[in-house]
Amino acid sequence: MKIAGIDLFYLRMPAITPSADGTQDTLLVRLRTEEGLEGWGECDASPLVCIAAYCCPMSHGNIINIRESLLGETFDAPGEIRRLHAKVVRNGLDIQQIHHAYSGADIALWDLLGKKRGEPVYRLLGQKQAHAKTPYASVLFQAPPGATFQRACRLREMGFSAAKFGWGPFGKDAEMDEALVRAAREGLGPEAELMVDAGVAWGHDAELAREQAVQLEPFRLTWLEEPFSPEAIGAYAALARSNPRIPLAGGEGCGTVRAAEDYLENAGVSFIQIDAGRIGGITPARRICDLSTARGVTYVNHTYKSRLSLAAALHVFAGAERFRFLEYPLGGSALSRELVTDALDRAPDGLVYVPEGPGLGVNVSADCLRRYAVRTRIELDGGSIYESARA
Amino acid sequence: MKIAGIDLFYLRMPAITPSADGTQDTLLVRLRTEEGLEGWGECDASPLVCIAAYCCPMSHGNIINIRESLLGETFDAPGEIRRLHAKVVRNGLDIQQIHHAYSGADIALWDLLGKKRGEPVYRLLGQKQAHAKTPYASVLFQAPPGATFQRACRLREMGFSAAKFGWGPFGKDAEMDEALVRAAREGLGPEAELMVDAGVAWGHDAELAREQAVQLEPFRLTWLEEPFSPEAIGAYAALARSNPRIPLAGGEGCGTVRAAEDYLENAGVSFIQIDAGRIGGITPARRICDLSTARGVTYVNHTYKSRLSLAAALHVFAGAERFRFLEYPLGGSALSRELVTDALDRAPDGLVYVPEGPGLGVNVSADCLRRYAVRTRIELDGGSIYESARA
Repeated sequence: MKIAGIDLFYLRMPAITPSADGTQDTLLVRLRTEEGLEGWGECDASPLVCIAAYCCPMSHGNIINIRESLLGETFDAPGEIRRLHAKVVRNGLDIQQIHHAYSGADIALWDLLGKKRGEPVYRLLGQKQAHAKTPYASVLFQAPPGATFQRACRLREMGFSAAKFGWGPFGKDAEMDEALVRAAREGLGPEAELMVDAGVAWGHDAELAREQAVQLEPFRLTWLEEPFSPEAIGAYAALARSNPRIPLAGGEGCGTVRAAEDYLENAGVSFIQIDAGRIGGITPARRICDLSTARGVTYVNHTYKSRLSLAAALHVFAGAERFRFLEYPLGGSALSRELVTDALDRAPDGLVYVPEGPGLGVNVSADCLRRYAVRTRIELDGGSIYESARA
Repeated sequence: MKIAGIDLFYLRMPAITPSADGTQDTLLVRLRTEEGLEGWGECDASPLVCIAAYCCPMSHGNIINIRESLLGETFDAPGEIRRLHAKVVRNGLDIQQIHHAYSGADIALWDLLGKKRGEPVYRLLGQKQAHAKTPYASVLFQAPPGATFQRACRLREMGFSAAKFGWGPFGKDAEMDEALVRAAREGLGPEAELMVDAGVAWGHDAELAREQAVQLEPFRLTWLEEPFSPEAIGAYAALARSNPRIPLAGGEGCGTVRAAEDYLENAGVSFIQIDAGRIGGITPARRICDLSTARGVTYVNHTYKSRLSLAAALHVFAGAERFRFLEYPLGGSALSRELVTDALDRAPDGLVYVPEGPGLGVNVSADCLRRYAVRTRIELDGGSIYESARA
């Protein structure tokens, strides 16, 4: 197959707030082949900054944009998708945003290859069989704690056996934190898996985090996520050493393979959370999944976008039976709910089954692309170098 | 001082080639205060992708652009510049390009504070005295080896006691590599410090690099730079263990403080090369300089832009007497040579003295800003969100 076109779709809700809700806008990437096939991917990143990485003028041999690296390329096998990943990253060596931006295109390449071969992506990745995952509802804490309790009760009624609460009012005050986590535990019930996402609350302060972690021990957390700034590997390691009773999770911010390796090798985390929409797509995410297996760390997806991203995330580790948790965003914007429909709902047994259709196994709504489109145009010296694609 | 304006200047040469010459374009950042002072900084990065990080619409609480984070802020002390660095990085947690882009603004803040106080930046950083540095000429290898020999002879005539050759024809063929390094050594003479920049030639292949390094031993390299892809920390560590006779250097690609820490802690390098125009400015570069001191690794600047970047780089480690080498780009584009003139030339003793004037101690040519300007305009839904500044 020859790559004949790359189309970017910047979509957003009419109003954007500074909340931690990552579904308020998005960037979709559509790749078209000469023979007329289409593949889709999504970036969990700033749409405009990513668009710039697709069209920026060459600065020298290490700043060459993604469009230039991909257009006209041919690929017919998984190894070729890996070759293209290496090429794009090499050509964009000095474009810091390259991994965030390329994520959508890499995912679209796997989708295309699967469609061409009539196979689901997980199988192209060498996984013989897909295992259903236990979705954990991923929601935000709400103040006062009573509101978090209500939300947790609702999740229990909905049949979730696992849930993660995070961000929002958490991390500012120890007493409030304790009350919020207690409320979540009481609402979910004693049997449920409860995770807490601290939302980088404690910066680089391992000692403060240790005190908080001790306070949360009675609530038997499956993990404590992102207690620190993503760069604070030393603080992670110190906390892991000082309080091994609460397993740590982190890594969603990893924008390079090395950043994820660094977590695996040096942070002492028990769970590594990789977002295929940030680290450069399915190709590098899969590599981290393999490295995690080798190191005895549990791989989990990080996903807070549409079900297109969820499908991409799922194919990466579908075959790894012992990596059983799946981050499963609940709620989210109308945009994120309408973009892909009728896919990846929970089955009656409460699990999420990996799509067996070709490629990612999900379909993008053309209506949604039109409804939420942000027309984008970039001009240099009076000439256009980028204009939005049409749906 | 209150930040009243942020102006970006995308400049470029009429023709850009895919060579390793990083001076073919640039992005300058000018900050203006309410009281009418101006500070300047430069990014070693893709101008357009950086511009997007200054003006991209908010996506959520972790994707807030630099303009939004800085405009209207006040600062009057070094601690305030550090606070602003932390704020920008926190607000842009999910903008991968944030560090590359913010570099110029951080440098401009230090320039402003120095101008306000009538002090050179190095002193604001707590360094009592500046020590002159030994400039090493930073040039590209040329094929055939005879051309590299000529270039080396010329550097010797110019009085350079240290020179680094890199990129271009190097790293593709072992025999050619040996001939190129031999030519450089013969041209420079036996006493000179000779560094080789392998230009990420050997990817992740520590074994191949080891063979090459053995072959280069007779030429007594001060260091071998970037034998690997910037992400290949494991390969660096393996090479450092297997051939300790050739000191390794790396780190120019570090776009975050953690990436640099990772080099210091895990790569086994003897020299860490930090570009203040990529890692987020003088603030984080200075932190790495302190960490290097603590770990016994030699800090060196990476600079391949105009003398504005060179000045910023120099202030970071001006006070560290034992970090004596200064990367000193030679040649470069007309743009990079005309942007800042009459500054940082070598003194008659061959050394480079740190500017003692206020701020960075250099002046930007307004003519040059006009001559090489790229008019840039970004429109969303028909409205402009960014237009080039005027000089």
